[in-house]
Amino acid sequence: MSVGLLVVGSIALDSVATPFGVTADAPGGSAVFFSAAGTILHPVQIVGVIGSDYPLGALKALEARGVDLSGVERAAGESFRWKAKYSYDLSSRETLDTRLGVFAQFRPKLPEKFRDARYVFLGNIDPELQLGVLDQVKQPALVACDTMNYWIHSKRDLLLELLRHIDILMVNDAEARELSGDWNIYRAAHWVLEHGPRMTVIKQGEHGALLVNHDTTFKVPAYPLQEVFDPTGAGDAFAGGFMAYLASTDDVSLANLRRAMVYGAAMGSFAVEAFGVEGLAGVTLDDVRARVRAFKQLVHFDLDEGKPA
Amino acid sequence: MSVGLLVVGSIALDSVATPFGVTADAPGGSAVFFSAAGTILHPVQIVGVIGSDYPLGALKALEARGVDLSGVERAAGESFRWKAKYSYDLSSRETLDTRLGVFAQFRPKLPEKFRDARYVFLGNIDPELQLGVLDQVKQPALVACDTMNYWIHSKRDLLLELLRHIDILMVNDAEARELSGDWNIYRAAHWVLEHGPRMTVIKQGEHGALLVNHDTTFKVPAYPLQEVFDPTGAGDAFAGGFMAYLASTDDVSLANLRRAMVYGAAMGSFAVEAFGVEGLAGVTLDDVRARVRAFKQLVHFDLDEGKPA
Repeated sequence: MSVGLLVVGSIALDSVATPFGVTADAPGGSAVFFSAAGTILHPVQIVGVIGSDYPLGALKALEARGVDLSGVERAAGESFRWKAKYSYDLSSRETLDTRLGVFAQFRPKLPEKFRDARYVFLGNIDPELQLGVLDQVKQPALVACDTMNYWIHSKRDLLLELLRHIDILMVNDAEARELSGDWNIYRAAHWVLEHGPRMTVIKQGEHGALLVNHDTTFKVPAYPLQEVFDPTGAGDAFAGGFMAYLASTDDVSLANLRRAMVYGAAMGSFAVEAFGVEGLAGVTLDDVRARVRAFKQLVHFDLDEGKPA
Repeated sequence: MSVGLLVVGSIALDSVATPFGVTADAPGGSAVFFSAAGTILHPVQIVGVIGSDYPLGALKALEARGVDLSGVERAAGESFRWKAKYSYDLSSRETLDTRLGVFAQFRPKLPEKFRDARYVFLGNIDPELQLGVLDQVKQPALVACDTMNYWIHSKRDLLLELLRHIDILMVNDAEARELSGDWNIYRAAHWVLEHGPRMTVIKQGEHGALLVNHDTTFKVPAYPLQEVFDPTGAGDAFAGGFMAYLASTDDVSLANLRRAMVYGAAMGSFAVEAFGVEGLAGVTLDDVRARVRAFKQLVHFDLDEGKPA
């Protein structure tokens, strides 16, 4: 039996406009992007809620790829919806509408078999719910957690409590700055380490990601892409690749965490090459490995001890 | 006799305000930052102009470190002055004043011994002057060139002519976008390649730098610094480290160009750790090598062929 990998997060319907096209009520949400990427490397157990209007075909496609849906609750009402528009160069986006729907009353309940999960990712939801999920997991080997500015401001105390119970906080650079109150991203990462987690992962969008622990910093750049269609979900695909690589290898050594960062960055790069989760649907393990090797070439240089004279 | 390394550029008096302090009429300018970094690795020949008010002590200090000043012309009038203010997080700056002074009438004239230079860096000055310098160099092995938005708009035709005569265009990301008219930085780099240079180097400030040729892309991140005092001159220090490493090794293979990028990034990191050129004055070759090794650790990961299963 393979090591359990659990994700809790949103299962949403996204309506996104980029300069290259639009989607309307397309399957999305942190748990969906995480799963679509993660399942390429390792089976994923998903916990979330959908409304009575959610298209089941999208979830069935995930199930066919190795995602266990037994933790997806179906509730009466509308599914979570998110609507956003990106700037011409995709460097910023504006959220036009957020409708919680059935997500407002969501209280995650783990199926018994999910409670043995060894690798747990708490997607960006209310920290109270994230803590509630942790209570239901028996003995995880590694817990990573995302959050967002909304919770940093509205539920800071609960978030700080949560930090004491997780191994990795995984946020974007703006969130790290908000949480720590420090604009220097490396100081912000160390601020997090002083509040519980052993590691901070900072997602930097087109500039890649950082892994910071007390002793070292690891940087993976973003993959050089001449065509980017939709940045939505890149961070969750990164998380899915990162966590699924760790689960598939069941190795939390620092050397393996560095590799996991690169698998995460590879998944992020596939995610942005198409709209929604489509970019990930056709990606094979061989594709991922080829891109990981390309990352190696991207940053590789030999030392030249002795030169210059 | 060592291989000649020539820089032409501004020799300025900078008045800079950051959240951490201010300078007034401090030695600066592209040729000065380039030389202060480059001379740690290799002797530098500098071509530029100063006014009658320029403090000679600063230049004498460079001379004592291996910079040949015989191409520095002293003209009657005021030295070039630049005044700027950085934002609280150093992410942007506003130019408050630029006074060309003697720089307005500057026509670079190379001392005879400089005409044998093998490595030539054309700092950010009028492309007409950059072309004039190239005419005076006999047989360079590698020519790199910087420019800025002002020349991209006011002297585009001359700049395009210049591109046909250089090996590397080295600009920041905003300049690459302006020049190419493309916001995607990788497409912008390839646009440059279609207009003459064999390589494009794109400086990305706190996000490092890219080296792009027709076949490959190399990325060096910026060094993780918890304290940055003054970003002024980081790009020119990068150029100084890059070019001086190439000159010191006299090797323009792609493997060596990658190493040169890392030496450049190391110099950029020293430059920003203090105000003005001060950060570079006390840096030794051992310091640089140690930082280059730290860069290796920053990005290093091992491939895991065969995993995940």
